[in-house]
Amino acid sequence: MQASSSAHRKEDVTPSCPIGRAGDLLGDRWTLLILRDATTGITRFDAFRENLGIADNILSARLARLVEAGVLTKVPYRDGNRTRQEYQLTEAGADLLPLLRSLAEWGNRHTTPAPGLAPMQMLHVSCGGQVSTGGVCGTCGQAVAREDEAWLRPWRSAEPVRLAMPAET
Amino acid sequence: MQASSSAHRKEDVTPSCPIGRAGDLLGDRWTLLILRDATTGITRFDAFRENLGIADNILSARLARLVEAGVLTKVPYRDGNRTRQEYQLTEAGADLLPLLRSLAEWGNRHTTPAPGLAPMQMLHVSCGGQVSTGGVCGTCGQAVAREDEAWLRPWRSAEPVRLAMPAET
Repeated sequence: MQASSSAHRKEDVTPSCPIGRAGDLLGDRWTLLILRDATTGITRFDAFRENLGIADNILSARLARLVEAGVLTKVPYRDGNRTRQEYQLTEAGADLLPLLRSLAEWGNRHTTPAPGLAPMQMLHVSCGGQVSTGGVCGTCGQAVAREDEAWLRPWRSAEPVRLAMPAET
Repeated sequence: MQASSSAHRKEDVTPSCPIGRAGDLLGDRWTLLILRDATTGITRFDAFRENLGIADNILSARLARLVEAGVLTKVPYRDGNRTRQEYQLTEAGADLLPLLRSLAEWGNRHTTPAPGLAPMQMLHVSCGGQVSTGGVCGTCGQAVAREDEAWLRPWRSAEPVRLAMPAET
């Protein structure tokens, strides 16, 4: 037997714990911001870059990793005479919604916003109620379908934005 | 006006978005693993180090950051003749439970475990049902209190482990 060359990690390449496996992919600030943006409808490289103020090489690397992990998928679109690729959520990417909701809820509750800023709200479009981390409407008590959820982020827009749907496969 | 010296970030020091603020602290693989371990009852520096196989300086830095952010708190304990510090979750740290559940659920569903490994389960102790990301028991339908939740991680122990409670303040 040979000592592992990866002396920093006790766990195997594939961690036993699903939190460890998810954290290997998602335990990265830029990755979380990219997934937030994808969830609110951003699909194009330039739009991610513009919105995040992220360097090209970092954005490229993160997007490639998310595509490889099956969380985003590349979909061709026409840009004038050229065919380009945009990035859409897969079903696995859409399934990160509870994670994003839990970050938003915790951030609203336990971090300090800039002064005078109204908080983010996750809304049930049909009734206007607030959606919980687990996806239940606090007003009507229904399980909220993805297509019936919108996020109000007052610093971006006065109107709530419906969530992006995963790419059709 | 002067150009920002922090050219990588478009957002202010305090991001407008609560997902951004939460991600600043939590978008880090080691941080998520430390919080998972704290949630399952690990409190001491040596135990985190042993369990995670993490370098001393990295662990120190992460723990200090979590204490500064008010997610962990240092609590003195006696070790023979010496007084040492252990790390316990605060209420804000305990409030990260939905985030950890969402990572576990996503990891169980969308990542591949080592062969032959039974999945992690989040259990309602009173009835044995599975706890959802939002903290509801899938069997009895009740909202599950923290003291009534236990995690079964078969690669660690044959018995479910009750969650650590936040430090008394």
